[in-house]
Amino acid sequence: MLNFKFDLPTQIFFGKDQLKNLVKAIQKEVVEPRILLAYGQGSIKKSGLYDQIINIFQQADFFYTELNGIEPNPKIESVREGATICQKHKINFILAVGGGSVLDCAKVISAATFYKADPWDFFCQKATITQALPLGVITTMAATSSETNNNAVLSNAHQKDKRSVHSPLIRPKFAICDPVYTYSVSKYQTASGAVDMMSHLFEQYFSSTYDSYLQDRMTESLLKTVIHFAPIALKEPQNYEARANLLYVNNLALNGLLSYGKIGDWACHQIEHAISAYNDMTHGVGLAIITPIWMKYVLTDQNCARFITLAKNVWEIEQGSLTDQEYALAGIAQTAAFFQKLGMPSSLSEVGLSKELLPKIASTSVLYGEIGNFYKLNQDDVLQILTTAF
Amino acid sequence: MLNFKFDLPTQIFFGKDQLKNLVKAIQKEVVEPRILLAYGQGSIKKSGLYDQIINIFQQADFFYTELNGIEPNPKIESVREGATICQKHKINFILAVGGGSVLDCAKVISAATFYKADPWDFFCQKATITQALPLGVITTMAATSSETNNNAVLSNAHQKDKRSVHSPLIRPKFAICDPVYTYSVSKYQTASGAVDMMSHLFEQYFSSTYDSYLQDRMTESLLKTVIHFAPIALKEPQNYEARANLLYVNNLALNGLLSYGKIGDWACHQIEHAISAYNDMTHGVGLAIITPIWMKYVLTDQNCARFITLAKNVWEIEQGSLTDQEYALAGIAQTAAFFQKLGMPSSLSEVGLSKELLPKIASTSVLYGEIGNFYKLNQDDVLQILTTAF
Repeated sequence: MLNFKFDLPTQIFFGKDQLKNLVKAIQKEVVEPRILLAYGQGSIKKSGLYDQIINIFQQADFFYTELNGIEPNPKIESVREGATICQKHKINFILAVGGGSVLDCAKVISAATFYKADPWDFFCQKATITQALPLGVITTMAATSSETNNNAVLSNAHQKDKRSVHSPLIRPKFAICDPVYTYSVSKYQTASGAVDMMSHLFEQYFSSTYDSYLQDRMTESLLKTVIHFAPIALKEPQNYEARANLLYVNNLALNGLLSYGKIGDWACHQIEHAISAYNDMTHGVGLAIITPIWMKYVLTDQNCARFITLAKNVWEIEQGSLTDQEYALAGIAQTAAFFQKLGMPSSLSEVGLSKELLPKIASTSVLYGEIGNFYKLNQDDVLQILTTAF
Repeated sequence: MLNFKFDLPTQIFFGKDQLKNLVKAIQKEVVEPRILLAYGQGSIKKSGLYDQIINIFQQADFFYTELNGIEPNPKIESVREGATICQKHKINFILAVGGGSVLDCAKVISAATFYKADPWDFFCQKATITQALPLGVITTMAATSSETNNNAVLSNAHQKDKRSVHSPLIRPKFAICDPVYTYSVSKYQTASGAVDMMSHLFEQYFSSTYDSYLQDRMTESLLKTVIHFAPIALKEPQNYEARANLLYVNNLALNGLLSYGKIGDWACHQIEHAISAYNDMTHGVGLAIITPIWMKYVLTDQNCARFITLAKNVWEIEQGSLTDQEYALAGIAQTAAFFQKLGMPSSLSEVGLSKELLPKIASTSVLYGEIGNFYKLNQDDVLQILTTAF
């Protein structure tokens, strides 16, 4: 186990009717709140959540202004717009309501408000985040785990690039997580979210640090929870236990708990980011296509043990007369089959990507050097994975 | 899943050589530290840790004074002594170095410093903790999980009573957890610590809340980690991975992570506290004796499912032709056998308890009413369990 600092500062108000904690949670951060309310494309208006929040703000006599229309795969333009609003209205607190796209966008706005130049600088190592507004979030989807972590992913449509930034300063102070808010998430987005969570878990599970017994067993327990409840949530969107378990997995999947003391891989994420810079597909869809192919590509005799624990502990496959390689491949096949069972596509051609883009995507993936830690991939490796995935 | 507030504020510096973070961690809490250094019966002097800490204090020019000699099953007298020192020397920070006894004692000192009357009041519902000094800890043993939680257990030798107190105000601000510090823990204490951790996990696992899939799977992953590494640590006391995994389990076993959204049982702990008020046995020893007998006593057809997951997921026993009751009992038998494999006694007579005390212990156990949530126990139930355990 490697050394680590365990630090999970985000408070989570989890369960039904947790909106009652909103006023106090904001007041803990700022005495006289001037709030930017950031949200997406209107689903919170349909659900009534927007009205509830505005009512709470008005009752508490909080100043607020809005940034709405934040898109899936959020663009750096939304950050620029949000930061300008914050500066203009002397905003001292951001409340982001939505899924990972809204949350990630709000995280970067919180930092961009204090940054004089262009916020894309944070994403291409030209600047470091040194200050950020306090941020609270209300989660409406289980997918990216953005509500409890230091990360944000944004796209730069102009540069055909999608990148991530990390800073403890942009971690939300609190998250209100009511599983009922996720009842209205569509089947497609529920499935994509489940794949996204599983991919985060895989990226941590497939580690070059083999001495991480506890972390590995915990990661398996989260994987098993998604595998158990995602099909239930698809069948019964208003099943509270299914939504609650998926949402609690989301809280824990990427906050550090499972990665402390080990090094993750993250190659699939980097490839998927490169793909979706060219094609506005849902993140989970790209990951569902790439992940099983990546698994097969990187499997060797040396790292086979890791795939065997996947087959045995997560998928509960018995080895029987299978060789170790066959056993590992059975776990990978089961992973692919599960993604298909959730209704995910299994090839890039299915989602309308042009084959001619593959070399460009491969090149974008390795822009800053080889990717992955469990298994290092160069541009040729990525191109082979993409070609197989087509 | 029940509603919960997720709040894990203790920062953990985990791994080798983490003492380098001590000065900054203290300075984050107080500008001009005036420190009470609280420790036990001298093992930190033997190991050299004491000298390292004093050297750090002197280099940083921190004022400090000491409370030493805190005993296992710490007494309320030590709290009174510590609080008097804190008041006299205008202490503004406590650093506790040791196992659960030292940490628990320091937690109560942190609150007692601000309390005008007798601190035992906190333990018998006469007073609530409203203020406490900030506390940092250096853990030298994996057992009680005291370094990351809100709880403290103390004995009142005069009243033959051992009770717990809970307050977020006494949760440590930071914990330095270096697995190397636990190398010198004796076999007996390593085994007792493993049982203590497993008991904490069982108390949360045996819950009247059945809708807690994720929490249950995570709890199983921690149980499996203790089961895997405790025998290794006994055989190879300086095995870093074994000590690190046990210590990280300790950090997570009782900080809220596994109990959020469900209600634990805690009857075994209440019985063991009553026993050790009369007999100064190590906490884990009492729990090793009581827990399997409690399991058998409370097993019914209605709650059998919980015991079956223990047999299946934790002990990896196959059901084969066993009935559900037989399967449940196989898991319980395996639990008892594991405790014995660790070298724990399996009866109260073995540890020299007088049989005449059993009615008194039963009566003390239920002083504030029936105990347990998974299965409610009255005085007769407790006496039957104690008699079986004799």
